[in-house]
Amino acid sequence: MKYRVKIKIKLKKGMLDPEALAIKKGLSLLGYDVENTRTANLIYFEMNGKDKKSVVDSVEDMCKRLLCNPVIHDYKIDVKRIS
Amino acid sequence: MKYRVKIKIKLKKGMLDPEALAIKKGLSLLGYDVENTRTANLIYFEMNGKDKKSVVDSVEDMCKRLLCNPVIHDYKIDVKRIS
Repeated sequence: MKYRVKIKIKLKKGMLDPEALAIKKGLSLLGYDVENTRTANLIYFEMNGKDKKSVVDSVEDMCKRLLCNPVIHDYKIDVKRIS
Repeated sequence: MKYRVKIKIKLKKGMLDPEALAIKKGLSLLGYDVENTRTANLIYFEMNGKDKKSVVDSVEDMCKRLLCNPVIHDYKIDVKRIS
């Protein structure tokens, strides 16, 4: 069976977000005053798996070993069956 | 009034996504075979505005002038009133 996977990766609360700071600074140079600027990344892909649980377990492994740094990132996994 | 803004920025269809290719390659080195790998970025912030339309217009301007490259990016703006 085929599954569509979406992973949302964001910095843990309290971590410095340089990208967000740069965005806030840039926007203020354009004359926009914004607060609580934060950023996150999304990764999408499709993969085969015998069931949803095994796909989620695989994606957990991917996040821990490659896609995220568990020390500074939080991640959220969303798996949907597509065929 | 205060609004929470979420902007989702992704590459236009057909654009080469080097980050996605690197993720696919990395995952294959871990033994995972994935397809249709894509990435997107999320930006969140809060801002004041007299009404929702004026906030959306401001964010459109921010996207065009700073946050996105209209030639290669598509973006989706989501605005919610919070106070």
